[in-house]
Amino acid sequence: MEATAQLCKERPGAEVSVAEIANAAGVFPNQVTYHFGAKDSLLVHAAFLGLLHDARRVERVGRQAPDAPAFRRNIARAVLAMPSLPSAARALAAGISKPELAPVVDQHLRLLFRQSEQFVSQIIGDRDWKARRPLDVEVRTFWSTALGAVLLVRAGAHGTVADLDLAGTLTIYDEEVDPD
Amino acid sequence: MEATAQLCKERPGAEVSVAEIANAAGVFPNQVTYHFGAKDSLLVHAAFLGLLHDARRVERVGRQAPDAPAFRRNIARAVLAMPSLPSAARALAAGISKPELAPVVDQHLRLLFRQSEQFVSQIIGDRDWKARRPLDVEVRTFWSTALGAVLLVRAGAHGTVADLDLAGTLTIYDEEVDPD
Repeated sequence: MEATAQLCKERPGAEVSVAEIANAAGVFPNQVTYHFGAKDSLLVHAAFLGLLHDARRVERVGRQAPDAPAFRRNIARAVLAMPSLPSAARALAAGISKPELAPVVDQHLRLLFRQSEQFVSQIIGDRDWKARRPLDVEVRTFWSTALGAVLLVRAGAHGTVADLDLAGTLTIYDEEVDPD
Repeated sequence: MEATAQLCKERPGAEVSVAEIANAAGVFPNQVTYHFGAKDSLLVHAAFLGLLHDARRVERVGRQAPDAPAFRRNIARAVLAMPSLPSAARALAAGISKPELAPVVDQHLRLLFRQSEQFVSQIIGDRDWKARRPLDVEVRTFWSTALGAVLLVRAGAHGTVADLDLAGTLTIYDEEVDPD
């Protein structure tokens, strides 16, 4: 799975074959399919493994923000720059066209949402910031926009993920620097 | 194309075959593939045709809103209830896995964004409302969230598209009723 995540990261959006995965992992191709079933399932696992890993790095960026406006800005920028985002878009697309992958997608999205919610809950507690919505809604709105943005671009939309206001979908604020 | 849009609408998210499309349109299957090439291209066209059509109905909902908060709420609710949204999610997924469809996706998304921007521009001009971002950014952020929301659910995420705050991604406001 780690070899797959690494290959997906090196070649964002490109097709990766079972032979290449097996080669990178130092195993035989049939060992890959024996453990993970269809290649798509492995790609979905690997994509979300990469996403969860990158999300941890984004949390470190968030912790360095001096105030809530910087937090919103820096988190949004860091998420859109995550190398795993195109693979995650591809994994979601696979989940749509192959319903048998839906449980795998669901499992990883739950983990992502829970991890993000815990992070936000902790940081706003530590800093005495506030959010204008329940945190589960905050997190799901944010990730829907981020993943929607990359999905549109990967599906063919002109422009880049920077053409929307992801920071503006975060409602975390600090009364001292966000007067309203 | 209209027969395809109708079939997609009747069976959101389900596979539609060229034979069924041809039957519904009263033509031979080879006439379908002659005019539209691969079935995927036809499905993308049909999905976005449905989306653009539904978006017009959402505009009528928006025009009936008495104030900006109701506008944000009603637009968000109407968009998430659009029958064409699951087909649009499927079309985007097809665009990701088949790069040859990207130009078709791009063409339709440009049309959707332009149509939405014109609508918002007109209504905030008529009502003397304001937006906190440039309208092209407003529109792209809103649609990224809406399409991201349905993509997550179609790909397997637990919950529904109502679990996020789509209305909250709109920054259109009326100084008389939105004091900040």
